[in-house]
Amino acid sequence: MTRVFNFSAGPAALPEPVLQQAAAEMSDWRGSGMSVMEMSHRGKEFMSILAETKALLIELLNIPANYKVLFMQGGALGQNAILPMNLLRGRNSADYVHTGEWSKKSIEEAGKYCRVRVAATAEASRFTHVPPQGSWDIDPHAAYVHICSNETIGGVEYHWTPDTGDVPLVADMSSNILSKPVDVSRYGLIYAGAQKNIGPAGLTLVIVREDLLGSALPITPQVFDYQHLAANDSMINTPPTYAIYIAGLVFQWIKDQGGLEGMARLNQAKAGLLYDTLDASGFYTSPVAREDRSRMNVPFRLPDPALDAEFLKGAEARGMVQLKGHRVVGGMRASIYNAVPMAAVQALVAYMKEFEAKHG
Amino acid sequence: MTRVFNFSAGPAALPEPVLQQAAAEMSDWRGSGMSVMEMSHRGKEFMSILAETKALLIELLNIPANYKVLFMQGGALGQNAILPMNLLRGRNSADYVHTGEWSKKSIEEAGKYCRVRVAATAEASRFTHVPPQGSWDIDPHAAYVHICSNETIGGVEYHWTPDTGDVPLVADMSSNILSKPVDVSRYGLIYAGAQKNIGPAGLTLVIVREDLLGSALPITPQVFDYQHLAANDSMINTPPTYAIYIAGLVFQWIKDQGGLEGMARLNQAKAGLLYDTLDASGFYTSPVAREDRSRMNVPFRLPDPALDAEFLKGAEARGMVQLKGHRVVGGMRASIYNAVPMAAVQALVAYMKEFEAKHG
Repeated sequence: MTRVFNFSAGPAALPEPVLQQAAAEMSDWRGSGMSVMEMSHRGKEFMSILAETKALLIELLNIPANYKVLFMQGGALGQNAILPMNLLRGRNSADYVHTGEWSKKSIEEAGKYCRVRVAATAEASRFTHVPPQGSWDIDPHAAYVHICSNETIGGVEYHWTPDTGDVPLVADMSSNILSKPVDVSRYGLIYAGAQKNIGPAGLTLVIVREDLLGSALPITPQVFDYQHLAANDSMINTPPTYAIYIAGLVFQWIKDQGGLEGMARLNQAKAGLLYDTLDASGFYTSPVAREDRSRMNVPFRLPDPALDAEFLKGAEARGMVQLKGHRVVGGMRASIYNAVPMAAVQALVAYMKEFEAKHG
Repeated sequence: MTRVFNFSAGPAALPEPVLQQAAAEMSDWRGSGMSVMEMSHRGKEFMSILAETKALLIELLNIPANYKVLFMQGGALGQNAILPMNLLRGRNSADYVHTGEWSKKSIEEAGKYCRVRVAATAEASRFTHVPPQGSWDIDPHAAYVHICSNETIGGVEYHWTPDTGDVPLVADMSSNILSKPVDVSRYGLIYAGAQKNIGPAGLTLVIVREDLLGSALPITPQVFDYQHLAANDSMINTPPTYAIYIAGLVFQWIKDQGGLEGMARLNQAKAGLLYDTLDASGFYTSPVAREDRSRMNVPFRLPDPALDAEFLKGAEARGMVQLKGHRVVGGMRASIYNAVPMAAVQALVAYMKEFEAKHG
């Protein structure tokens, strides 16, 4: 078996020990005689998995006691609708900060349920920076202020936490959750699709401050009513049990790596090596403002798009896959989430230098 | 490794060869160097898995060309809301047939989006039968007529296909899909949560006639808009990729067992053995009308509820789990979906006789 270096933007690489444990436990989870996939979600075995997974997440993110953790289905795109369904609290508008493709999707979807104000936008720089706090125009009556903490496509990341005063801050953290310590108490709500740093696609985490619950619009499907989910510990219906189990294994792996401080150090080292390589090169370029560059998704360009196909082909021949950039941005993109090892970035950097020497 | 006989109502037993193949392919799917969980949903590997899974389902159910197959998230309870969001087509009411707990949930949820008429109900028999077609009062202007083809909790199943004239018939088939041949052309829409006969929880199948698409309510989240999903082959966002992969393995296993005819024979034999045992006994009783008994979920009662705990304890000691009935019905329930082997039913029947001999 040869494992590739997988730079996919999501679903993305998982830690090898997690996959090995999942394989070993597939037909018989710890002497239960069942696969986790086969377990009644209300049986003692799965209830223990859910409780342990939740406890690990609370520990890793140091989630305060006045927050609820929900395990949901539907993905982050689904949450873009479910969020305003639940969080308007009788108000008729919400503020959004536009930093790229994912915040754009959030803005479009929210418009079905409320008036959407764009409090700040990076459009002028073609979404290559995060609008500085000073440029934000927050409506004090807004139900919340929404940000995308890491734009997976554009490769732009917040390295600071916005101050939105009394208006709750909401963050789509799908592509950088668990990559560094976060002060959860600064947020009203955090959501994240699982398929980057958490586990398999089909699971979405929501972490929400209790006082914001209880005002879902009447049209909210009951399985997407945060308050109803919180009251039933995410068990209104059958949750995505196997995805929750894998998430628990990933959380344990993160803990074993030194928790979020450990992940932050590793991610900084990986991203640093890649950006240093880009900056030292007269060949590759990064489109993103230096202070807002993502540690998770690194878009870069070759001097001539005509070289892209050859670059990708050579990478694949060396066991490096999914380096093609998103069509909106073009060029290349290396997604280097938690589970992408330093060895993958070292291999990529070595190949980039080799390719530059040949074509530079 | 000792596998138990798992009578869970869902998530439920999966075929052992499927689990073995999943374990073997966990870290490296067919030489790709990746787990299926790690694959970009838009990469060639996963695209081939999705296409193969869909083709197998179309083959097994003989789905006509004018139907769309959608792989969705959210579960059947989510579909109870998503269905009226999509299928009202400018009408303001829908008809529902009330046969137990699951149709009750469907009725309650639909009430958020339209007027709900109960076209027939089995309430008079405490939901132990399917109301005969002659008793149905269908509104010819209804957007659709909804049935639950198998009530998982009550153990009541349709062994006939209702004739609803020009009003599209919609069926929640979560707990009996793929257990026998079905004439899909008699239905406007079929939906089914995966965690009984399809695969892991977190995936929901929708099979919908094309002419019913395109009229979603403006409040429909884009990820739950059938037309939008159909136009994008279920890939608006990241689908639950690993659950789809396992579903594909299960579909192949069903095909290898002789397809739905093969499954129907096996299920008839399993259910027949269990019901014959109940009927021949003066000890155990089945609460369900003989002609409407489910081949998937078999509730039964001991003569005295005080014996229930001992029965369950003895079953567990013999490697048989999840036989406790749902609290709404009480007593016992053996769920004997496709993947529950004949050997499990034989072991259960032997134990039931042993227990009867001791306590009868």
